[in-house]
Amino acid sequence: MDTREVAQDFAAMMAAGKMEEVAQKYWAANLNTYEAIAGGGLPEDMDETHGIEEAVAKATWWGENNEVHSMATEGPFVHGDRFLLIMVIDVTPKGGERMQMREIVEYKVADDKVVEERYFY
Amino acid sequence: MDTREVAQDFAAMMAAGKMEEVAQKYWAANLNTYEAIAGGGLPEDMDETHGIEEAVAKATWWGENNEVHSMATEGPFVHGDRFLLIMVIDVTPKGGERMQMREIVEYKVADDKVVEERYFY
Repeated sequence: MDTREVAQDFAAMMAAGKMEEVAQKYWAANLNTYEAIAGGGLPEDMDETHGIEEAVAKATWWGENNEVHSMATEGPFVHGDRFLLIMVIDVTPKGGERMQMREIVEYKVADDKVVEERYFY
Repeated sequence: MDTREVAQDFAAMMAAGKMEEVAQKYWAANLNTYEAIAGGGLPEDMDETHGIEEAVAKATWWGENNEVHSMATEGPFVHGDRFLLIMVIDVTPKGGERMQMREIVEYKVADDKVVEERYFY
């Protein structure tokens, strides 16, 4: 598949709320993830993760510490081996105030898998 | 300035429609620009430009060949030395149909200047 095909299928699955299925289908074993700023609501050692096990641990932690009321995505926007999704998440962090998160995630694709996730906000 | 300060000023100037002033203030002499696909409504040799003179030539060509009815931006979304702007342009290409362009531009910052523009759509 080319990047746009991966991106469109990935985005459609995200829009349908199938976040776990997306991870199973598209996360590469060597996936790295990068938050935009240190300590942005995550444990410090999750600002940057290396390998799928750390990415799964981060996703699990996030799911356990945030109540998601709804999520919407827009995109993909494609360039070369990368694509962007605009994410809008209506969420209440554990012990915090309900808020609207609006961010853009950049995904880098190699061999039909996502090898890098980079968060912009 | 850090990336977010550059990004916020840049975005505010774009939102005010000051595209020429933005270029004068923030384009680096060694600015490179990269379109997402070949021949996306531009002359072929403008899909990738190197140096500020080629970027100015591209902007001039685009201005002469498109009638902009309105433009809106959203952002910036920041990560490290890069930031993203969502661009919505109501435009009629010369000899074409009026359309709504919606794209995301990634800007890379060095020494308070933009050294790279990359278009996602």
